[in-house]
Amino acid sequence: MDSDYGIPRELSDLQKLRSLYQPLLPPCLEGTTVRVEFGDATTTADLADAHNISRSFPHTYGQPLAHFLRATAKVPDAQVISEHPAIRVGVVFCGRQSPGGHNVVWGLLNALKIHNPNSVLLGFLGGSEGLFSQKTLETTDDILSTYKNQGGYDLLGRTKDQIRTTEQVNAALSACKSLKLDGLVIVGGVTSNTDAAQLAETFAEAKCPTKVVGVPVTLNGDLKNQFVETNVGFDTICKVNSQLISNVCTDALSAEKYYYFIRLMGRKASHVALECTLQSHPNMVILGEEVAASKLTLFDITKQICDAVQARAQQDKYHGVILLPEGLIESIPEVYALLKEIHNLLRQGVSLDNISSQLSPWASALFEFLPPFIKKQLLLHPESDDSAQLSQIETEKLLAYLVETEMNKRLKEGTYKGKKFNAICHFFGYQARGSLPSKFDCDYAYVLGHICYHILAAGLNGYMATLTNLKNPVNKWRCGAAPITAMMTVKRWSQSPGASSIGKPAIHPATVDLRGKAYELLRQNGARFLMDDIYRNPGPIQFDGPGADAKAVTLCVEDQDYMGRMKELQEYLDKIRTIVKPGCSQDVLKAALSVMSSLTDVLTAMSSSSGGHHKSL
Amino acid sequence: MDSDYGIPRELSDLQKLRSLYQPLLPPCLEGTTVRVEFGDATTTADLADAHNISRSFPHTYGQPLAHFLRATAKVPDAQVISEHPAIRVGVVFCGRQSPGGHNVVWGLLNALKIHNPNSVLLGFLGGSEGLFSQKTLETTDDILSTYKNQGGYDLLGRTKDQIRTTEQVNAALSACKSLKLDGLVIVGGVTSNTDAAQLAETFAEAKCPTKVVGVPVTLNGDLKNQFVETNVGFDTICKVNSQLISNVCTDALSAEKYYYFIRLMGRKASHVALECTLQSHPNMVILGEEVAASKLTLFDITKQICDAVQARAQQDKYHGVILLPEGLIESIPEVYALLKEIHNLLRQGVSLDNISSQLSPWASALFEFLPPFIKKQLLLHPESDDSAQLSQIETEKLLAYLVETEMNKRLKEGTYKGKKFNAICHFFGYQARGSLPSKFDCDYAYVLGHICYHILAAGLNGYMATLTNLKNPVNKWRCGAAPITAMMTVKRWSQSPGASSIGKPAIHPATVDLRGKAYELLRQNGARFLMDDIYRNPGPIQFDGPGADAKAVTLCVEDQDYMGRMKELQEYLDKIRTIVKPGCSQDVLKAALSVMSSLTDVLTAMSSSSGGHHKSL
Repeated sequence: MDSDYGIPRELSDLQKLRSLYQPLLPPCLEGTTVRVEFGDATTTADLADAHNISRSFPHTYGQPLAHFLRATAKVPDAQVISEHPAIRVGVVFCGRQSPGGHNVVWGLLNALKIHNPNSVLLGFLGGSEGLFSQKTLETTDDILSTYKNQGGYDLLGRTKDQIRTTEQVNAALSACKSLKLDGLVIVGGVTSNTDAAQLAETFAEAKCPTKVVGVPVTLNGDLKNQFVETNVGFDTICKVNSQLISNVCTDALSAEKYYYFIRLMGRKASHVALECTLQSHPNMVILGEEVAASKLTLFDITKQICDAVQARAQQDKYHGVILLPEGLIESIPEVYALLKEIHNLLRQGVSLDNISSQLSPWASALFEFLPPFIKKQLLLHPESDDSAQLSQIETEKLLAYLVETEMNKRLKEGTYKGKKFNAICHFFGYQARGSLPSKFDCDYAYVLGHICYHILAAGLNGYMATLTNLKNPVNKWRCGAAPITAMMTVKRWSQSPGASSIGKPAIHPATVDLRGKAYELLRQNGARFLMDDIYRNPGPIQFDGPGADAKAVTLCVEDQDYMGRMKELQEYLDKIRTIVKPGCSQDVLKAALSVMSSLTDVLTAMSSSSGGHHKSL
Repeated sequence: MDSDYGIPRELSDLQKLRSLYQPLLPPCLEGTTVRVEFGDATTTADLADAHNISRSFPHTYGQPLAHFLRATAKVPDAQVISEHPAIRVGVVFCGRQSPGGHNVVWGLLNALKIHNPNSVLLGFLGGSEGLFSQKTLETTDDILSTYKNQGGYDLLGRTKDQIRTTEQVNAALSACKSLKLDGLVIVGGVTSNTDAAQLAETFAEAKCPTKVVGVPVTLNGDLKNQFVETNVGFDTICKVNSQLISNVCTDALSAEKYYYFIRLMGRKASHVALECTLQSHPNMVILGEEVAASKLTLFDITKQICDAVQARAQQDKYHGVILLPEGLIESIPEVYALLKEIHNLLRQGVSLDNISSQLSPWASALFEFLPPFIKKQLLLHPESDDSAQLSQIETEKLLAYLVETEMNKRLKEGTYKGKKFNAICHFFGYQARGSLPSKFDCDYAYVLGHICYHILAAGLNGYMATLTNLKNPVNKWRCGAAPITAMMTVKRWSQSPGASSIGKPAIHPATVDLRGKAYELLRQNGARFLMDDIYRNPGPIQFDGPGADAKAVTLCVEDQDYMGRMKELQEYLDKIRTIVKPGCSQDVLKAALSVMSSLTDVLTAMSSSSGGHHKSL
């Protein structure tokens, strides 16, 4: 089986051309000498979780942020790393493949070899299972040559398995020890990076010298927080999906007789659906986050779509395009409750035939109301992260069915007088994630690969490679690293009145921020999207000429660069120290004290209340 | 409703860029003077049909081929068209939208205005229904500006309705008369061009001065014959589908646990599936033409796939990609017979619930064997061309279901010892046909639009615009026109022993030629595609840089240029006339006579046998 990996392959002309593309590096990573500057010790977004997390991660919690700077940058406390002994690093793909993953490997290999040609990069074959069974391929520039800037994870393969059980963690530990790895790079999303943090902690505890580094690579775009602006693969996935959605919009407008219901991948969060909406301007999108926030029922959503169909019919429009994130189904309160009951029964080993009879009365009522195909899908075993098998539940067909039923009813009752409602359903998922990565994802992944090396060279453990200021050109990108534990939160929920339960610290998928600028943009334009058919076609991903450098709308409208601002604040604090030195005037000291005191009051008040916000998500 | 059409729209950056692209013209169409040269009177491919067709089309059958040449070309019998009075032309989109349709309108408008700025182009709104009800939009360069090189038919809209019944034909006649049209251009596929020929005949009969011109625009690629090498839209559809198929291949190879069953649009013929296979190299494709030729049953096909799955499992491969043309279902003999019985019962007004009980015993046995979802789809009313609603029948799910059942059986019986078989199904259709057209389709459609004008300027009626030598650059393309009747055939079938029935003359969809070079290429590589995973990703359509000028594989491997060769033959015949003039030596005359006599014998023999070949398709 191993021999299948890393073999040279026949490439199309465009693939060949892409394989020759060389991403640029930000100036701070050019050359062989890099400065690393450490910021303050990190905390968590929700202070209430800090204690909990620090207890679970005694060795790796509270480490400082790291910024990578040019060797010539004038920063007093920075540490210049100029010695680069040969090191051995392992890299593993975890979870769903995301376009650009190969470039992390390439960037890492390139950085390793630039700094010491004797360094070695081992790729684990077949994902985490290859890690446990120590199946490796030594990656070389030759082997990589037909995988550079290409999609998929087929260079090394992947599994969706987690690195979580004691057995798995121990297998990983043995692998790193026996392969004498100085570093282990884990390429993946929310779950895999949580696992990376756990591994880092375990390794530190066990005094294993292997440092663990995480890389944010997931098409869902839900590994988003103060330190991480976007994920490798999200840009490509949204571009490919938007191309197809726009094609369908054009189709709808040409034929004028169909409503297309399109479900998009993206797991629980609706980032992909939001970005695609802002790219393509379909008539409607129903974000899981909106449904959860407004506690909309299946019937509310059906009514909302039917009313839209009816309003459009009054303008003689009998076509439309409606986007649905795959996580939507779990966001509908009564469906979520039904799924929880089903999953509990499945866990108790109740057979499929008997589940329906053991549901609570109201869950049973909902279940019996649903059409057979969706019943069967709701009965599927949950995924390893306890969520439903979202990619298998055809929410688009369910809603199309409910809307059709309701429209026919209205037609019969005479409350709707238009033409018959026709729906066509699509699920866009698998056809996007193997795509050639966009230029942005090629660059982003490649530079992250380089940063992984510098994290290891600085001897850091339990960090994630970060790049910020991404909406600007590559030469303005800021390179850094943040402790993974600083991205964690703890979930609390009440299972029965009085008894509340606390989850394990983990990186949780970030949901779409309903107070953020991207959502605001959707809200402002929603009515025009719905009625005016202002469809927009970003077209197929271009690699040359105008359009090749386009970036995600959600990336560009959000005012992120948290890491950059954190550095700016530090510079202010340093400046105040320089100004308010012993010997300065009484007035200067007084002014400084007065402002600092009120600032401290304000921030204390804000920090304790902001915790609440985060929990409510 | 009318006001929705032709309105300016917001374009993405790439769309804007595309809207500025100016296709080139072949040298013969540059300038304002064009020569038209007429070839010999045309016949039909099957001589047995000639009588039948000539009787149905007394006014338009047997017209000569037309070639458009540079005004300076030295051809003795050519006619130079230098007078260009202002004319009024109507254009209508018929049938499924196909990328590039807008450029036919643009090319036509451009040619009209170049030759006489007072000429007028009226677009019929909402397809053939707009023609019948005389709803028009005068197209101008301004109106076209945001539709140039863009996908869809949304500039004018379309319907799938045909122009066939006496009522419809009369409505079209009235429209052309009352709008004082000199020409009517019909943009569409096999059915619409057959309708165009009928209209031309009726108009000639009724002494209506409107000349009717057809343009071969259909994503199916099945309007293919001696005169037509490919259709507008086919290139784009195959490129978009190949991009997605390749993404899925990469996905399959990365995850290594799924078999993807992908159904492709294309109606009865498998041209799209064949082209996509040659582009992307998926593991398998099952062409409807192969199934029909070998009379494979549903069980044969299932077994074929299962054996492939098993052979791959022996090499530890549990993933794969299998393409299925939408027409496959009708190519399976027993399913076709079942569909015919169902359609007959539907036509007799038998209600859906009673159909199953009125089927013949063996049809009923097959029907009852099928899973419920496919039963429901087989019961749908047939399309207006009597075929099943191919886009609605989920053949991919049926085959995935049958293969899964069989693999589970083999697993249980111990004849298969691999991992459990997992399938994911896709239908790629609607997400491709609204695409931005490829450069090839933009060019092809634009030049065809120009040719439409020259056909009208030459006063021709019942012709189709043709371009040949397409695999070469635009400046080598040969411009011409062929009578639509010359592309027709007549279908004969026996409904009961002894009684045979003859169909109406029509252009029938060309099926994949199992003796052709494209199929040969597939046959040569099929075994490697199946076992070796030599997936190839042509990537998203590029508009700039290398790859932008890529053409369909099936177009490039086939040695077509029938029109070019026809001209070459004519040149030989002319040359012989020049050499063998009264006064030439007895020997020269004798030699000429001897060779011509044997040539005539050979051709007579070949012509009478070739008729049989065509009928057997």
